[in-house]
Amino acid sequence: MSPPDRISTVFDSTPGSKHAYKSSADFRSGRLNAIANPGAVKINVEGAFIVDEEPRSRSRSPIEAEGVHYESQDIRLPHHTGVVSHVAVDIGGSLAKLVYFTRELDSADNGGRLNFINFETHRIDLCIDFIRQLNEEHEKLNGSSQDELCVVATGGGAYLYYDKLKEALNVNVKREEEMQCLITGLDFFITEIPNEVFTYSDTDPEPMKFAEARPDVYPYLLVNIGSGVSMIKVSGPKEFQRVGGTHLGGGTFWGILSLLTGARTFDDMLAMADSGDNSGVDMLVGDIYGMDYSKIGLKSTAIASTFGKVFRMKNAAERNAEDGEGLSPRDPEHPEDDVKFRPEDMSRSLLYAISNNIGQIAYLQSEKHEVKHIYFGGSFIRGHRQTMNTLSYAIRFWSKGEKQAYFLRHEGYLGAVGAFLRRQPANWGRRNSLDDATAPLTFKEALLS
Amino acid sequence: MSPPDRISTVFDSTPGSKHAYKSSADFRSGRLNAIANPGAVKINVEGAFIVDEEPRSRSRSPIEAEGVHYESQDIRLPHHTGVVSHVAVDIGGSLAKLVYFTRELDSADNGGRLNFINFETHRIDLCIDFIRQLNEEHEKLNGSSQDELCVVATGGGAYLYYDKLKEALNVNVKREEEMQCLITGLDFFITEIPNEVFTYSDTDPEPMKFAEARPDVYPYLLVNIGSGVSMIKVSGPKEFQRVGGTHLGGGTFWGILSLLTGARTFDDMLAMADSGDNSGVDMLVGDIYGMDYSKIGLKSTAIASTFGKVFRMKNAAERNAEDGEGLSPRDPEHPEDDVKFRPEDMSRSLLYAISNNIGQIAYLQSEKHEVKHIYFGGSFIRGHRQTMNTLSYAIRFWSKGEKQAYFLRHEGYLGAVGAFLRRQPANWGRRNSLDDATAPLTFKEALLS
Repeated sequence: MSPPDRISTVFDSTPGSKHAYKSSADFRSGRLNAIANPGAVKINVEGAFIVDEEPRSRSRSPIEAEGVHYESQDIRLPHHTGVVSHVAVDIGGSLAKLVYFTRELDSADNGGRLNFINFETHRIDLCIDFIRQLNEEHEKLNGSSQDELCVVATGGGAYLYYDKLKEALNVNVKREEEMQCLITGLDFFITEIPNEVFTYSDTDPEPMKFAEARPDVYPYLLVNIGSGVSMIKVSGPKEFQRVGGTHLGGGTFWGILSLLTGARTFDDMLAMADSGDNSGVDMLVGDIYGMDYSKIGLKSTAIASTFGKVFRMKNAAERNAEDGEGLSPRDPEHPEDDVKFRPEDMSRSLLYAISNNIGQIAYLQSEKHEVKHIYFGGSFIRGHRQTMNTLSYAIRFWSKGEKQAYFLRHEGYLGAVGAFLRRQPANWGRRNSLDDATAPLTFKEALLS
Repeated sequence: MSPPDRISTVFDSTPGSKHAYKSSADFRSGRLNAIANPGAVKINVEGAFIVDEEPRSRSRSPIEAEGVHYESQDIRLPHHTGVVSHVAVDIGGSLAKLVYFTRELDSADNGGRLNFINFETHRIDLCIDFIRQLNEEHEKLNGSSQDELCVVATGGGAYLYYDKLKEALNVNVKREEEMQCLITGLDFFITEIPNEVFTYSDTDPEPMKFAEARPDVYPYLLVNIGSGVSMIKVSGPKEFQRVGGTHLGGGTFWGILSLLTGARTFDDMLAMADSGDNSGVDMLVGDIYGMDYSKIGLKSTAIASTFGKVFRMKNAAERNAEDGEGLSPRDPEHPEDDVKFRPEDMSRSLLYAISNNIGQIAYLQSEKHEVKHIYFGGSFIRGHRQTMNTLSYAIRFWSKGEKQAYFLRHEGYLGAVGAFLRRQPANWGRRNSLDDATAPLTFKEALLS
């Protein structure tokens, strides 16, 4: 299986260069340095930028196993030189996302970097082993002092695995609320990290365009696509409301495809989708009409029904076989065979259907809640071109070009980064978005998707 | 496979009774008789009512085959005594729905009835055979006069199979526009047929309640669920707009389930869903949190991700098998087996997911287009309790009880009945909804779902 056609190829570094992107003057100007606050953890984010190279963490902590994924887009913090005594983990239904800081004492600037790694949740033991390694390194470097490692945990697994984490690691485990972490993380990426947020449209010669920082960040809609999908209207740093969602999400895609195709990793499924043709399983308008349904603007190539061809073809083939006519649409040489559908076609169809459905609901929620900017996060996206293009197209199509979908290069780590940052002291960062971070959450309304 | 738990059991007739429901005074009052219009077809709908018995058509035209479904809810027209020289067929992506009138010369009132039958579209030849039988009967009864049988066709198949219909039957084939037929049919059912429209909620002691006729029929949203889903805002008899839809529809349910379960009929799939438990495959909030996610009102039993348990359980079992631990969650006796998911659980999960998704989008579209009443039609519903309850609950939940879902006992035949009626002369029926039926359609806008 060849690797999927992922957007990361856009970021190919110049050979030998340690980082493809540095922070621009635009981004750097106006950013506050961390404010000294003795006794509390502080991260200096001045001059932060994304590094495109094989992650250092891979060589340093070589846990190599199926179900473990090292990201290749660390965030370099050239001006943070201190020790950080916490790691953050966002444990969802399918993936546990880990963020941690490593010092780079051998670098010219004496700085360090944020590292990103995820584990399939059912391999939570590998994640715990990894944190144990980090803890051992931490103690080796800094001594077994009062500053022992703290794990900041969020997501449902912060509750489900709380006892397990505490017992296995024998460290302090602090829990942070999931939605608040997502918002904190997204706000950080929007305002602090250059070349993090982008728009995508494959009809443009340059499909990916980095978004300018905006003074009017709020309100926006965050659509977080993990196993399930949450849609959160954000009106301010601590003012947000889960307005809806859908349970047709990443877990649906992974679950159905693992049954239909035998694929065992998300990346295999995405790679299959890249070489698939959804019309092998989808019923198109042309399959029903034999032509465009032009009166209502439906082209013959428009999808009428996801997987809508399957039942009809399968039953027809089975009946033909029973009737002794023995003509299977795909296998004229083997009339006894059942009709077969290509795993690639099924992958592409389902990926499109789930992405497009989320896009439509996101648009409709943005209309109802009067929000123009829509950010898509979560590990379902994985920088995959087809996924982003479908989401982006759905927003443009339904809004007649009035609204825009935004993506992030660390889309899967909003919650983990948010949890990491919520250990911060007040008043760091240029928007002071994290002051009073321990105040009660202001969920205005609770809605079940 | 036992028959599915369908709503039709609600209509059990008194033994020996030929009809369980007669038209009420409410409905009959104010209804105009057909206006005489010599030379044109006219249907007298006075006193029309739904008949609950084995359909007469079954004994009269005994095509018995998989993929052919006779409805048991004919509509009796006690005052229509004339010959009707047309039949109507609505040929969709998965089903061809046929409506035709039969005289009952042996009955006391000398009236007749509308008959309803559908065929899987890939068995269109059976449908054509059936129409040929009707044509032969028609000629036998009425002689081969100028009033030869006419087929009024709508749906995509009216185009795809136009030549085939004409050649195989050697009759006149008239085509009618699909959306217009749906509206015409629905308006007819709402205003002319007693005990046709109902609401459904299984939390009530009597889940099914027939809807009162309303003077303010318009505007409403029609959500037609066939292979795909169309959502149509209707502002008047000829004023409507396809505002959206989704291609996650009946075809998706039938297609995925035929691959996953081997079921070969829709009814088998619905029967499986009745005895399934979606938590066998769905990831619930409790599977992620180990408890409620109470801060945002998500109970531990709420679905977080449709099929979200599958990937995790499947991969865990496969890895255990490879590691020699050999513990499959479902099959401790057969460690070499892959983890198995019950077809019943998968059916229930997918039926819920697709219904709930349509319900949410329908609600959001009704908000955007400021419509309060939402009618659900199309052959996906099939009077199935779980489907209707899910759709109904979704509308109530999202609208906080402000909006209501309506269903129809002939939900699959809106288009076919509409096509049948569009052969009518002007000014019949009490709302005159069919006058000027050949005027150009007023599609205000064309939108692609």
